[in-house]
Amino acid sequence: MARPSSLDELIEALRCLPGVGPKSAQRMAYHLLQHNPRGGERLSLAIAHALKNLRHCIRCNNFTEAEVCERCASSKRDPSLLCVVEMPVDLNTMEQTHAFNGLYYVLMGRLSPLDGIGPRELAFERLMARVGDGLVKEVILATNFTNEGEATAHYLSELLRARGLKSSRIARGVPVGGELEFTDAATVAQALRERREY
Amino acid sequence: MARPSSLDELIEALRCLPGVGPKSAQRMAYHLLQHNPRGGERLSLAIAHALKNLRHCIRCNNFTEAEVCERCASSKRDPSLLCVVEMPVDLNTMEQTHAFNGLYYVLMGRLSPLDGIGPRELAFERLMARVGDGLVKEVILATNFTNEGEATAHYLSELLRARGLKSSRIARGVPVGGELEFTDAATVAQALRERREY
Ligand SMILES: [Zn+2]
Ligand SMILES: [Zn+2]
Repeated sequence: MARPSSLDELIEALRCLPGVGPKSAQRMAYHLLQHNPRGGERLSLAIAHALKNLRHCIRCNNFTEAEVCERCASSKRDPSLLCVVEMPVDLNTMEQTHAFNGLYYVLMGRLSPLDGIGPRELAFERLMARVGDGLVKEVILATNFTNEGEATAHYLSELLRARGLKSSRIARGVPVGGELEFTDAATVAQALRERREY
Repeated sequence: MARPSSLDELIEALRCLPGVGPKSAQRMAYHLLQHNPRGGERLSLAIAHALKNLRHCIRCNNFTEAEVCERCASSKRDPSLLCVVEMPVDLNTMEQTHAFNGLYYVLMGRLSPLDGIGPRELAFERLMARVGDGLVKEVILATNFTNEGEATAHYLSELLRARGLKSSRIARGVPVGGELEFTDAATVAQALRERREY
């Protein structure tokens, strides 16, 4: 009297989504099957398509469909400023301030020893290669003001100093313990203006 | 400087899942791409597979891969008792009580005039055809004790009475306003034992 296996598999597979436990996976599966099969079809294709087409920009590490993303390829951005953020959502938050016209580097994470995420997992050597292009004059460290974000910024500032590169940290206008993603654009803009040298 | 279109499409497509807003769709997309591409592949296939393989059992209306599901095909269940529930999760809850050995009918919803869900949308005529098989002696109405579930049970009891069929309602051991899915098995078992005739 088990559930049909393809239903069980769907429920199990939905649990790969962050924040989705057994109960909500079940609800999602029934919802798709009963009320939104077309949405399900679209989702199935969108996942397959995204996995096939998206890769990391060789310059900023953000997701892109080209080798170099539009932003990195743009001649309108100042290549002497490089802003390092944890995640693509943080980059979006920075852009929404309209207070920054340089380029970005997306770490796709933060140092987190407890989760086994160290400098190697975040490929810091790729960032170091990126900042050594001869154009970057200042690296703005815009990781979150969480413990892990702070540790990441500190670690990177040491690496950059060892290479004779100037780094700065956006100001602590962002609430202590807060995350960029949930901060309003004005506060983030101010934090950017008040960045201090490491 | 827009996001790559296949990323935007993935984020948009994830919103077809119940309870997933723009923020969490974004988080889910980045998580799949960055941390769990294999999970994403699995999910894409599982959705496609489930949509292709699952259909409604012609007897109980539950999801199944066969024309008639295992439970309906079993000779160990009492065909004189038919328990009507709203959703597959409710059927699972009933089964967990081990207090019922009859058969089921899954409405796949409840009457909800505000959402445009009436007797036609729930295909009550299919249920009426089902109960007219000459074997069913009693229809146990086990919809939720929400307003909509109560209205559904009441409506069905009238339909059944008009056909000279006995119907009963599980006892209000389930807390008023509560849903079966979130009620412990012992309470549901008692509610089943204390069912009263409509
Ligand atoms: Zn780029
Ligand atoms: Zn069945």
